[in-house]
Amino acid sequence: MKRTLGDLAEFVGGRVVGDASTEIVGCAPFEAAREGDITFVRGEKYLARLDETRASAVITPLETTSAGKSILCVKNPQLAFAQLLTLYYQKPYEPTGVHEGAAVSATARLGLDVSVGPCAVIGDRVVIGDRVDVRSGVYIGDDSSIGDDSVIHPNVSIYRGTTIGRRVILHSGVVVGSDGFGYVRDEDTHVKIPQTGGVTIEDDVEIGANSTIDRATMGQTVIKQGAKIDNLVQVAHNVVIGENAIVVAQVGIAGSTKVGRNVILAGQVGVADHIDIGDNVIVGAQAGVAKNIPPHQVVQGSPSMPQRDFLRSSVLIPRLPQIKRIVDDLARRIKALEEHVGNK
Amino acid sequence: MKRTLGDLAEFVGGRVVGDASTEIVGCAPFEAAREGDITFVRGEKYLARLDETRASAVITPLETTSAGKSILCVKNPQLAFAQLLTLYYQKPYEPTGVHEGAAVSATARLGLDVSVGPCAVIGDRVVIGDRVDVRSGVYIGDDSSIGDDSVIHPNVSIYRGTTIGRRVILHSGVVVGSDGFGYVRDEDTHVKIPQTGGVTIEDDVEIGANSTIDRATMGQTVIKQGAKIDNLVQVAHNVVIGENAIVVAQVGIAGSTKVGRNVILAGQVGVADHIDIGDNVIVGAQAGVAKNIPPHQVVQGSPSMPQRDFLRSSVLIPRLPQIKRIVDDLARRIKALEEHVGNK
Amino acid sequence: MKRTLGDLAEFVGGRVVGDASTEIVGCAPFEAAREGDITFVRGEKYLARLDETRASAVITPLETTSAGKSILCVKNPQLAFAQLLTLYYQKPYEPTGVHEGAAVSATARLGLDVSVGPCAVIGDRVVIGDRVDVRSGVYIGDDSSIGDDSVIHPNVSIYRGTTIGRRVILHSGVVVGSDGFGYVRDEDTHVKIPQTGGVTIEDDVEIGANSTIDRATMGQTVIKQGAKIDNLVQVAHNVVIGENAIVVAQVGIAGSTKVGRNVILAGQVGVADHIDIGDNVIVGAQAGVAKNIPPHQVVQGSPSMPQRDFLRSSVLIPRLPQIKRIVDDLARRIKALEEHVGNK
Repeated sequence: MKRTLGDLAEFVGGRVVGDASTEIVGCAPFEAAREGDITFVRGEKYLARLDETRASAVITPLETTSAGKSILCVKNPQLAFAQLLTLYYQKPYEPTGVHEGAAVSATARLGLDVSVGPCAVIGDRVVIGDRVDVRSGVYIGDDSSIGDDSVIHPNVSIYRGTTIGRRVILHSGVVVGSDGFGYVRDEDTHVKIPQTGGVTIEDDVEIGANSTIDRATMGQTVIKQGAKIDNLVQVAHNVVIGENAIVVAQVGIAGSTKVGRNVILAGQVGVADHIDIGDNVIVGAQAGVAKNIPPHQVVQGSPSMPQRDFLRSSVLIPRLPQIKRIVDDLARRIKALEEHVGNK
Repeated sequence: MKRTLGDLAEFVGGRVVGDASTEIVGCAPFEAAREGDITFVRGEKYLARLDETRASAVITPLETTSAGKSILCVKNPQLAFAQLLTLYYQKPYEPTGVHEGAAVSATARLGLDVSVGPCAVIGDRVVIGDRVDVRSGVYIGDDSSIGDDSVIHPNVSIYRGTTIGRRVILHSGVVVGSDGFGYVRDEDTHVKIPQTGGVTIEDDVEIGANSTIDRATMGQTVIKQGAKIDNLVQVAHNVVIGENAIVVAQVGIAGSTKVGRNVILAGQVGVADHIDIGDNVIVGAQAGVAKNIPPHQVVQGSPSMPQRDFLRSSVLIPRLPQIKRIVDDLARRIKALEEHVGNK
Repeated sequence: MKRTLGDLAEFVGGRVVGDASTEIVGCAPFEAAREGDITFVRGEKYLARLDETRASAVITPLETTSAGKSILCVKNPQLAFAQLLTLYYQKPYEPTGVHEGAAVSATARLGLDVSVGPCAVIGDRVVIGDRVDVRSGVYIGDDSSIGDDSVIHPNVSIYRGTTIGRRVILHSGVVVGSDGFGYVRDEDTHVKIPQTGGVTIEDDVEIGANSTIDRATMGQTVIKQGAKIDNLVQVAHNVVIGENAIVVAQVGIAGSTKVGRNVILAGQVGVADHIDIGDNVIVGAQAGVAKNIPPHQVVQGSPSMPQRDFLRSSVLIPRLPQIKRIVDDLARRIKALEEHVGNK
């Protein structure tokens, strides 16, 4: 299909400065773009460099009449670019039905236009919504449910009794509903505490490859609407992750911790158990959180501290030997002064 | 089945204070319990608050005649509660036999009452004990063995020649027996050192979702009896993990390290290679262990130090800028004093 | 087959001191070796202890005429030992053909002597080279390709459009080509940025169990020739890992970061996004890299610093309370001196 810059402006809700009839054949980053592509710039500083890209059109946040390039003005260029990437490159979902090599329980209920790949296993009384794409090797345990338009990538394991919302994406290797890590000591041995609760994943959640979400001991582990979780993240039993939270790769969240709305946990962060992280908190990479954090704080470090303190103190760590030398020198000089003064 | 408080007292070995004929229909946490439930309290401080739960009975460690509630007195209330959770909520194992979609070698030997799920693969000369539950998508390589009453959750991969004991639980995505990370440098390239050893997992071990246990270069990587390993843990080649050790999520243990009995490694701990961690050691979350640790130590920090030192020094990190300012101020004042004194 | 020490010397390119006709039946570590085995020592300090091993022959880097033992002299004993381990213990690849329980697209092209295990899924237009071993439960998405002599272990997931070279080894649970973690904020929600790029894995790469390699937003995530990646490693979108780099377990590398040739990232290292790590850099365990690192540097710590600084400063961390006490004492004494001097 042939698409002009004018078509794209209509699609993303923007305004063209220049030639609206320019044909756009693809999307590409600023440096890699070729003739026929559209690209985007985020800030004013790139506006002066528009002639450095070979793209035929540029999405910008600002009105400009810059020479040579056609411009597509929108409020949020990155958002418009994401929408165009979807338009150009994302193949629409085509249902393939249930593969003959899948094992689907007779008591499972499947919605309209579902796909179930080879070697997928769907347990008793499972409910699958419309247009759900269950890829090969996926396991869905008894009494689970998956909402409309969700995608479950190959080799995901979903234990029994898991509730998954609409438009959820689970990447390969994700495990949902495995037993929480709970034991009670009985003399020399650890007796397993049965993990009788479940996991609820709300609408619009995406979970990255090989992340693990444990079921609750009792009650539910909950990933709330719109939360995005990266790869290799550990979410322990009874954790609640708030709406639209961002959890970056290799984060670990221990049992019963509550993560607020819009929280950002950067890569490799660890959060202790029974912690309350307020809404809109940002936790810097590799931080270790062992205390509650009030809303809107930005923290970093292990143990975590306000980011301002972290930035100021962490530059002093490599200078500790020098500080130690200064202190030793001062001690020597004070001793000399004391002796000198005392001698008088 | 109808169960009275008296029945439960008999089951867990406790004593009823109050009405032993109270019917108990389920188990729940203190706050969430409803009429008919039994709950538990751990410490004395909760005894005064027994009227705050709607549970019909409470398990406590102490004798009490507290008003209104029936009491079940036991030495270890959490243990009794775990036993009751099992009694009420854990479905007894029901063997399903070998699914027609499984691929079982003709030379494999299966015990009595086993279950083998769809798309499970069992290699040559594998020996599977009685009542073993091999779920869908599991791979068990040639010459491996699995002891009685073990559960291998969906999509676990067990490489050839792995020995697994009785009552072992492997959660989804676990990989056992993958090659250790061993190369020898030959000019510009890394030549793979064949990993010719194996993995031995003893009785009563549980391993969490997506954890990885590498096979030994030569000899065995060993997880000893009763050790419990959480999700996303890395155990490298030739590691030995001691009896009843607790290894929390995202811990990484490098090659040939020995972890003693009853050791606790908290979340995200890293242990270097060829380290010896003594019995009963506790390593705090995110610690980095690069030296041997004698038995019974409690350490924290990266690099790790005695926990007492860690607690005292880590509070000073955010105060480093202030300490630096004090030192600078002292230096200035000493200079002034020296000049003043020198001038006399 | 009977092999003498002389045969082995010829095989690895070394020279025998002693009895070349000694029969060698196996390889073992220094302490565990038995009669008939060959073992190796790395340094001179072991030469004096050659009588402590029961091995019938020892590989050493130095010429020696040491009593009793036959010696195999080579430049790189560990390399020779790895070659002998391969000779003695590695079974040659035997193709098994395509299992009837595999699901192979009619449009896929398979090379000579391939193996495709039960429940493996091979998508449309996939190209598989000669002698490729695709184990059970593996998923290979449409339009991917795998070069000659590669081994894809059970339950690996390879998303569509992935390019994999020759002699590549992917261990169980590896995920290649999952979506990068990219969203653009639109008021309160996160809009997914389609990840339209791919992943290229060059020849001779090995990737450990449950590691994840995300596809590029646009362009390619690249693992270059000979790089070795351990278990549970996260490689984000658009990352490039250089030739022969070593990436140890649980490392996380954020988006668009470039890792140079021969770089070593030790266990649990985190690298921020858009970072450039120069060739031959070594990053110590648990380090956090948030700035570019020039070639040939050795860094450690979080935030990372030159290793020399790290070693000197990290020993002072546990001594901070003592330093603080000294500073407080100095402040008191200076105050006294000032009063004393001022009083005069």
